[in-house]
Amino acid sequence: MPHSVAVFGAAGYAGALAARLLYRHPSFELQHVTARGDVGVRIDELYPHHRVPLELEELDLDRHARVQAAVVAYPHSAAAPLVAQLRDRGVRVVDLSADFRLRDPEVYREWYREHPVPELIEQAVYGLPELYRESLRDADLVANPGCYPTATLLALAPLARAGAIADVVIDAKSGVSGAGREATGKTHFVTVDENVSAYGVPRHRHTPEIEQELATLGAPVTVTFTPHLVPLDQGELVSCYVTLRPDALELDLEALYRDAYATEPFVELVSAPPGVRDVRDTNICRISVHHDARAGRAIVFAAIDNLWKGAASEAIQNLNLMFGLDEREGIA
Amino acid sequence: MPHSVAVFGAAGYAGALAARLLYRHPSFELQHVTARGDVGVRIDELYPHHRVPLELEELDLDRHARVQAAVVAYPHSAAAPLVAQLRDRGVRVVDLSADFRLRDPEVYREWYREHPVPELIEQAVYGLPELYRESLRDADLVANPGCYPTATLLALAPLARAGAIADVVIDAKSGVSGAGREATGKTHFVTVDENVSAYGVPRHRHTPEIEQELATLGAPVTVTFTPHLVPLDQGELVSCYVTLRPDALELDLEALYRDAYATEPFVELVSAPPGVRDVRDTNICRISVHHDARAGRAIVFAAIDNLWKGAASEAIQNLNLMFGLDEREGIA
Amino acid sequence: MPHSVAVFGAAGYAGALAARLLYRHPSFELQHVTARGDVGVRIDELYPHHRVPLELEELDLDRHARVQAAVVAYPHSAAAPLVAQLRDRGVRVVDLSADFRLRDPEVYREWYREHPVPELIEQAVYGLPELYRESLRDADLVANPGCYPTATLLALAPLARAGAIADVVIDAKSGVSGAGREATGKTHFVTVDENVSAYGVPRHRHTPEIEQELATLGAPVTVTFTPHLVPLDQGELVSCYVTLRPDALELDLEALYRDAYATEPFVELVSAPPGVRDVRDTNICRISVHHDARAGRAIVFAAIDNLWKGAASEAIQNLNLMFGLDEREGIA
Amino acid sequence: MPHSVAVFGAAGYAGALAARLLYRHPSFELQHVTARGDVGVRIDELYPHHRVPLELEELDLDRHARVQAAVVAYPHSAAAPLVAQLRDRGVRVVDLSADFRLRDPEVYREWYREHPVPELIEQAVYGLPELYRESLRDADLVANPGCYPTATLLALAPLARAGAIADVVIDAKSGVSGAGREATGKTHFVTVDENVSAYGVPRHRHTPEIEQELATLGAPVTVTFTPHLVPLDQGELVSCYVTLRPDALELDLEALYRDAYATEPFVELVSAPPGVRDVRDTNICRISVHHDARAGRAIVFAAIDNLWKGAASEAIQNLNLMFGLDEREGIA
Repeated sequence: MPHSVAVFGAAGYAGALAARLLYRHPSFELQHVTARGDVGVRIDELYPHHRVPLELEELDLDRHARVQAAVVAYPHSAAAPLVAQLRDRGVRVVDLSADFRLRDPEVYREWYREHPVPELIEQAVYGLPELYRESLRDADLVANPGCYPTATLLALAPLARAGAIADVVIDAKSGVSGAGREATGKTHFVTVDENVSAYGVPRHRHTPEIEQELATLGAPVTVTFTPHLVPLDQGELVSCYVTLRPDALELDLEALYRDAYATEPFVELVSAPPGVRDVRDTNICRISVHHDARAGRAIVFAAIDNLWKGAASEAIQNLNLMFGLDEREGIA
Repeated sequence: MPHSVAVFGAAGYAGALAARLLYRHPSFELQHVTARGDVGVRIDELYPHHRVPLELEELDLDRHARVQAAVVAYPHSAAAPLVAQLRDRGVRVVDLSADFRLRDPEVYREWYREHPVPELIEQAVYGLPELYRESLRDADLVANPGCYPTATLLALAPLARAGAIADVVIDAKSGVSGAGREATGKTHFVTVDENVSAYGVPRHRHTPEIEQELATLGAPVTVTFTPHLVPLDQGELVSCYVTLRPDALELDLEALYRDAYATEPFVELVSAPPGVRDVRDTNICRISVHHDARAGRAIVFAAIDNLWKGAASEAIQNLNLMFGLDEREGIA
Repeated sequence: MPHSVAVFGAAGYAGALAARLLYRHPSFELQHVTARGDVGVRIDELYPHHRVPLELEELDLDRHARVQAAVVAYPHSAAAPLVAQLRDRGVRVVDLSADFRLRDPEVYREWYREHPVPELIEQAVYGLPELYRESLRDADLVANPGCYPTATLLALAPLARAGAIADVVIDAKSGVSGAGREATGKTHFVTVDENVSAYGVPRHRHTPEIEQELATLGAPVTVTFTPHLVPLDQGELVSCYVTLRPDALELDLEALYRDAYATEPFVELVSAPPGVRDVRDTNICRISVHHDARAGRAIVFAAIDNLWKGAASEAIQNLNLMFGLDEREGIA
Repeated sequence: MPHSVAVFGAAGYAGALAARLLYRHPSFELQHVTARGDVGVRIDELYPHHRVPLELEELDLDRHARVQAAVVAYPHSAAAPLVAQLRDRGVRVVDLSADFRLRDPEVYREWYREHPVPELIEQAVYGLPELYRESLRDADLVANPGCYPTATLLALAPLARAGAIADVVIDAKSGVSGAGREATGKTHFVTVDENVSAYGVPRHRHTPEIEQELATLGAPVTVTFTPHLVPLDQGELVSCYVTLRPDALELDLEALYRDAYATEPFVELVSAPPGVRDVRDTNICRISVHHDARAGRAIVFAAIDNLWKGAASEAIQNLNLMFGLDEREGIA
């Protein structure tokens, strides 16, 4: 019998995709989709290609919180209070916002604002299955990673664990869907078309999330992380330039990565630099690692679909783990 | 009275644009345009938007070398022998290839092949006017810089001169015109569209050119340089991540750049990261510099149009200097 | 037990997609994929996103023709002889080329060339399931429609059957994948990007195919059909301008189309003009019909994915019918 | 001595481009640029590539109406009252809106709303220089044509004058800049990218403007006009399908067009269908005409840049005529 589930905030790009994936998931039954705008509109009116004929409802916790599981796709800071209410009623939650990713509320305050429900933070498991698979099985609150941290951490985890990272520069390129559905000057076609530029310089909010997890893996470094907007819809490439510790200069990088990811269902290792087209509309992260012997660096590229592995399908991967299902169900 | 000029190799993107700029230049008279394929075709048949009604001719040095100046837009290694012949006949040459950019023929051999006419190398002046303006006035052979080195060196020159660079990672993004006119799987629309990927990893041929010039400026570093292909036509952004020397951590970066470029006609300093659209179809390089205090880095972005400031209009800027004209003539 | 199947010509866009769909199809087993170039290369090397780890083989009929069914994705005129050989050995064939679409070999000669195996033409059933569903169940040779005829005929069939069409102009817009994988000046990114233009004017080869089928439906008109290339990958929109017969001016167009397509699994009727994004990567044709009362016209738009419903997934839909399966298996 | 000029509404795409062209025009001096939003912002902050370092001011007629000429780039209905005030003060005006294009206020009411200043309509000259050149020399109020009518009328004028048009279908494709600067769901990159769709079906507001002018030229037809949005920035292609009158079936179409446009400085006739790239950033309209003998039709394609010949540079062309200058000054 399928598990009942709701998506809160299903009018945005990530929430709507989560709704699509759950609507067709063999082991979940999507019972409610809510939104803060667009109430009464069907998802397939907003996003015909998702083909989800469900109507967006206004939030009504008494009705909507009777589900077993929820995906929350609210903006940062707005998510935490809803998550708290859902947890109070026993709903198991995957939260797509940044609200429960940072374990230290002080860091959250520095990069975002005062945390609305700091007492809930320690319940949360960081939802990167390749790093936290076992903890996720028992989790009731999962903090789904940011899209950039997802790609970056998968790119760097083997080197971090090996103690090989002295320093790292991360240059990321993202499609426009990553900027969300809001129509602004920045997302206007004429602004983006035939253009490339950096944003969030020099303090993008995904920086502390990356640093926290790298430190956990054994690489307590201060990273420089700079995202760029490129003229495409879905897709994200991170280019990681790792200065290697002196004792790591002779590492067999390919073997290191092969060992790390041999059994991962959603990581593909390739020898040539991956393109984001290779992983579009999939939960796959495609990685290549290269040795820049002249400069004593490792260069690692990781390509994902920012809306899939970087958000919605990763949330489903987490739900699968939480409910004891095959991790690939509904997303492979 | 205008100076007579010819463009050799005017069927490619850069050569055709050089022809367009010279065809309308008030102080040059474009007498010949040659090509190795497409002989008998008019440039405005290949490139209607250039509106140059001249027919591409097969090379005939006896007729074509009577000009005072030439732009050579041949591939690497094919250019050098033609340049030598033109110089023998007294023609002043701007060469768009890499053949005369590297001062050490050993380095040329390592990254390209045996140099065809090594004895000519020392005659060449590196054609980045912002660095070599005075030498260019007397030059008879100018090695026009690569598009990536143009943007990178303008981005880094102030820091290099200030002795501030300990280490540098350069992540570049280029439009597809940079890959040239040849139709291949890599330039097929379907390959490039909705895609981003790196190429030339980890040893792109523009690396030694960048290192040579940085060393000349006072920064003898081994750089990591990685270009990416992005789905747009013309435009190039370099993102430079500079680890600062300890004594440079307190540098006033904005003042440093303002002083360096205050009088440069083709460099624009801006406070927000520039986009490549801002400089499309211009000879302008747009630069922003940022202090990443957390990581002890300077981050510098430089945007150019790879076909203009990265190739053809920079060649005209060099010709203007060589012939004592206003540097901006015909390109501003 | 699954039916054995092979794809001949699986290195091109349509053939590779057919291979992908069959590789994952629950009722078919993809035993061979062949190609004329790229022999020895795996499909997932050419097209990573298809994730088909099969190696392209050189054609060897003795081995490859032991299958029950084949998709042939060869160019026009090259397909017919292979189809004949496969039919000789009892293989049931869906042919993606134009070779068996035109019932009159004289018409084929006029628009293509002398037909290689005219005697086989009468065996072929035109593979548009919405028009020929019953015949397709027994067919051993199916002529898969062109992408433009697929969209156009679905757009016009209800009006044609109603005897409402006095005249029709068809203006089509197609993504670049419709031009095939060959790298040429026409498919170079720089040619297509930021561009729109018509081609095949005034005699595109899909014209007689459209006219043949419209006549069969009851509308023996001479059509003007003009395709345009637009800067996107997959997707095709046909805009049909139908001058209505005087007695059809009061037709209830919406009811006509609703009745025609009420039970079709892959036709979606919408009230606003459809976009090609709405059907990307699906076998769906999305149609809207509008009454231009001022001009006495019906305007009908139909959007498909040219590689899916316009080629590969339509082939699977046909195979499903031929083998008595649910028409939606493997493509919905 | 240059003529003083102001641009009212210079924050939008067309107004800003008009400001750029006038800022560099040898015979005009751009004294003021106004806007309704963005007051205090410089044009080169909004549009760096225009390089116009002028600050947008709030409208102050006492100061701003002292100029000799004005370009008004206000929305429909908002423009007319401002134009009236400017005319009262003796300013010669080119109005980019639709307010003075339709000679019959009843038609304006039907397609827009009640006309704000109907008494001014008869003063206006329709600003298509190729049709109204002589009247424009004396005009004090010029109604700059819509972008679609500009391309369509240039495409059809020779046939209309020859009395050859029995019926016409116009299918247009436009880049997104035609939708204006406002950020909406329709102009969001993610909506437009990899998409094509029609809009304004079946009654786009440019229809009566096209019909009015075709009738004036001798072709009193009811047209079907349908624009489509394509994923590019600047550029517009109209594909015109003309059913020829019986006595026009043998017309030498090429000769007809050659004669019509032999001396036009901004019309280019070509034999192959033009692409919008061919005319980007120019005041040129590129036209090809084809005979579809099978269907008894002429097919005419016209490509323009919607912001240039379709709006801003055409306004300058009109100003040049009004002030007795060379028509090409500042735009060729």
